[in-house]
Amino acid sequence: MAEKSRLIVAILTDFGQQSWYVPAIKGVLLTICPDARIVDLSLQVPRQDVLAGAFILGFSSVYYPRGTVFLCIVDPSVGTDRNLIIMESDERHYFVAPDNGLLTFVAKREGIRKIVKITNRKYMLREISRTFHGRDILAPAAAYLTRGEPLEKFGPKVKKIVRLDIEEPRVENGTVRGKIIFVDDFGNMITNIGEAILKKADIKSGTEISVMFTPFSEMMLFCQTYDDVKADKPLGLIGSTGFFEISVNHGDAAKRYHAYPGSDVIIAVKV
Amino acid sequence: MAEKSRLIVAILTDFGQQSWYVPAIKGVLLTICPDARIVDLSLQVPRQDVLAGAFILGFSSVYYPRGTVFLCIVDPSVGTDRNLIIMESDERHYFVAPDNGLLTFVAKREGIRKIVKITNRKYMLREISRTFHGRDILAPAAAYLTRGEPLEKFGPKVKKIVRLDIEEPRVENGTVRGKIIFVDDFGNMITNIGEAILKKADIKSGTEISVMFTPFSEMMLFCQTYDDVKADKPLGLIGSTGFFEISVNHGDAAKRYHAYPGSDVIIAVKV
Amino acid sequence: MAEKSRLIVAILTDFGQQSWYVPAIKGVLLTICPDARIVDLSLQVPRQDVLAGAFILGFSSVYYPRGTVFLCIVDPSVGTDRNLIIMESDERHYFVAPDNGLLTFVAKREGIRKIVKITNRKYMLREISRTFHGRDILAPAAAYLTRGEPLEKFGPKVKKIVRLDIEEPRVENGTVRGKIIFVDDFGNMITNIGEAILKKADIKSGTEISVMFTPFSEMMLFCQTYDDVKADKPLGLIGSTGFFEISVNHGDAAKRYHAYPGSDVIIAVKV
Repeated sequence: MAEKSRLIVAILTDFGQQSWYVPAIKGVLLTICPDARIVDLSLQVPRQDVLAGAFILGFSSVYYPRGTVFLCIVDPSVGTDRNLIIMESDERHYFVAPDNGLLTFVAKREGIRKIVKITNRKYMLREISRTFHGRDILAPAAAYLTRGEPLEKFGPKVKKIVRLDIEEPRVENGTVRGKIIFVDDFGNMITNIGEAILKKADIKSGTEISVMFTPFSEMMLFCQTYDDVKADKPLGLIGSTGFFEISVNHGDAAKRYHAYPGSDVIIAVKV
Repeated sequence: MAEKSRLIVAILTDFGQQSWYVPAIKGVLLTICPDARIVDLSLQVPRQDVLAGAFILGFSSVYYPRGTVFLCIVDPSVGTDRNLIIMESDERHYFVAPDNGLLTFVAKREGIRKIVKITNRKYMLREISRTFHGRDILAPAAAYLTRGEPLEKFGPKVKKIVRLDIEEPRVENGTVRGKIIFVDDFGNMITNIGEAILKKADIKSGTEISVMFTPFSEMMLFCQTYDDVKADKPLGLIGSTGFFEISVNHGDAAKRYHAYPGSDVIIAVKV
Repeated sequence: MAEKSRLIVAILTDFGQQSWYVPAIKGVLLTICPDARIVDLSLQVPRQDVLAGAFILGFSSVYYPRGTVFLCIVDPSVGTDRNLIIMESDERHYFVAPDNGLLTFVAKREGIRKIVKITNRKYMLREISRTFHGRDILAPAAAYLTRGEPLEKFGPKVKKIVRLDIEEPRVENGTVRGKIIFVDDFGNMITNIGEAILKKADIKSGTEISVMFTPFSEMMLFCQTYDDVKADKPLGLIGSTGFFEISVNHGDAAKRYHAYPGSDVIIAVKV
C-alpha cells in the first residue's frame, strides 16, 4: 500500500525524451491514479542497457520514502516470455519491472519481502500491444499499486528474481581485480571494488597506485577528492557509491580511456 | 475548465534542457497558477520540427485525463503573424499552441470541440518579447486556463486550425506506398501506414516482405515483436502506435539506413 | 519560510540524466520533505560550467513565486574548502548552492537579503561523502528549508558571495565591445550587450550592422524577430533576455561560427 509514500511514482527508463513513449506512460499513470506524483528518476538510461539501469536504481532507491512505487522500464526483450513482476523490498519500496536483472542491485541492497508476477488482466489496459508493455501493463500496474491495491491481487507469488551475473571482485597476488560497472555523465568510471577489499590488499588512501584497464596502465593517486590532484590528472577514490572510481580532475576519464562497463580493472600498490 | 484534470499542465517543446527557456516557462506557470501540477511531456522535440512535435502529441494526449492542459511550443515562426490558439478537443483536452500544424494529429484523433485565438492582453505577461511568446503569451494562457478561466475569455472563436499536409498512404500495383513520419529514440522508423491498408494489399503478418526506402531495398519478416528475428536483423511490425514500423532487433534501424521523416516507403509481398 | 511557495523546490544541476545523482537527490528531498513539489529547472547545465548555470538561473528565477527554494548544484570543486551557502533574495527566493559564482546573476537581478553558510550538521545526512555534497548537504538543506526551517538555523551569517568576474561591455570608437555569455539549444549566441549601450553607440534596430567575433566578421540586419531575414541568413536582435543575440534564421549560429561563451563580440554600424 502506498499511503506513506504520499503517492510518489518514480520512473526509470531508457525511452529517452524525444519520443511519445514517456508521454504516453505518464498519461496512463495520471488517468488511473489522478493524484499520483510523478518523479523522473531517469528517462535516459543508456539504451537497452539493463546493467546501467540496475545500477542507477540500486544506488538511488534507498533514498526514497517508504511506499514509493518505482516504475522501471528497460526491456530489450519486450514481447518475449520474460515475466513482468512487482517486487516489494524490505524498505517497503515497490518495483514494477520486467524480470530481466534490472532489480539485481536493489534486491541486494534492500532485501526482498515479496514478489508477484503480473498476470491479472484487470490491472492492464484493455488492448495490449506486443511492443509497448511499459504503457499497457507496467504503467497501469504502477498506477493501481499507487492507488493502494494490495500486491497479491496482481498475480501469483514468485520465489525469486532474475539476477545479472556479475563476477565479484577478488584479491590476487596483492592486486585487486574487478570490473567497471558504470560510467557517469562526468566520465567517472565506477567499479564494483569496495573499500573493504582494497584494505584487504593493503591498498590505502593517500598512496600512489597502479591501475590497469586494458590497454591502459596508469599511475595515479588514491585520494579523497577530485582536487587532490592537478587538473587533467587521473586519480582514484572511493566515490559517493562507496566503490572505487577512476576519474580525471576537471576532465573526462571515460573519454580519455575509452572505458566501457564490463571491462576489467586491476589495482596494485605502486612498486 | 480544468477541475477534472486536477490541475495538470503537460509541456511539449523543442526548447531543450540546457537553456533558461523551460525554467522561465515553468516559473510563469507556477506564479499564475501556484497549484499547477507540471508534467514534462517532452522538452526535447527535435528542434523546430513541427511534424515530430505533432506526432508525439498525437500519440500520447489520448492517454491523459479529461481537463489536462497541454502547453505546446514548437514555434519556428515566433514573431511572425501566425496565430496563437487554444483548441479544446472532444476528449476535453486543452491545447495551447501556435497554429502551425502542431495540432494536426491530435485534432484528427480527438476531434475538435472549440478553437479560440489568444488575443486578450489580460492573460499575457505585461511585456511581450518578439522572440519568446512561449513565456509571454502561451504559458500565461495555459496557467489561466488551468485555473479555470473559460475558453471564450481568451479571444474570438476560430473555425479551423492549420494542418500539416501529409500525403495519405495508398495501394498501387499490389504495393503499399507511404512515408516515414517519425524516428524514435531507439531508431525505430515509424510510417503512416496502418494495419488496414496492409490488409487491403494482402500483406500479412508472418510473411516475408520487401521494403523499399531509397536507396535501400530490404527483405524482412513482417512479424509481431522484435525478438521474432535474430539480433541485428531488420524486421517490420505494427508498432504500439498502430502503424507499420521498420526496426532492427537490438539495433538502430534509423542509423543503419540513414532514415529521416518524410522519406518514402514502399512495401510489397516478397516474390 | 516556504509557505508562500507551496513547497516548490526547483533543481538546477549539471549532473545530467544518465546517472544516479539526480535520482538520489530527489529521494533525499522527498524523504525529508514528503510534500515537496519538485520542479526540474535544468538537469543538463553544460558540465562543470558555472557561468552557464549562473546564466540559466539569472534569467529564470525571477519568474518563480515567492518562497521557491532553488537547489543549485554545479560544483566542480566539491570536496575543497569552498563554502556551501543559502542566499535569500529580495524577491524572497532561496538559493541553496556552492559559493562559487553560481549566484552571480541572480544576486545582481534580485538583490541579496541574507546569506548564511551551511554548517549545522543537524541538517545534513549522517554520512557525508567527499564527492557528493549535493546529496549529503545541499539537498537536505533545501528540503529542511522547504519544510519551513528559518535560515538562521543552518549556520552563521555571511556578508557576501563569490561573483564571477565578467568584464562589462563598453563603447569604444563608435563600436560596442562585449562578450558571448551563453549559447542556447538553438545555437543562438547571447551576449552581455544590453539595448541601452547599443543606443549609446547610436546602433539602432532596423539597420545593417557589422558584427565581429573572431575569426568572423559578418554584415547582418539588426532586427526584431528571426523571420525578418531569409532562412539561413544571420541576424542580430535584442532577445527575450533583453540582451543582443546573434542568430541564424531557421539555422544554428553557434555551429556555423564555432561560437563559445567567453569570446569577444564587436558591433559597429555598417559603413
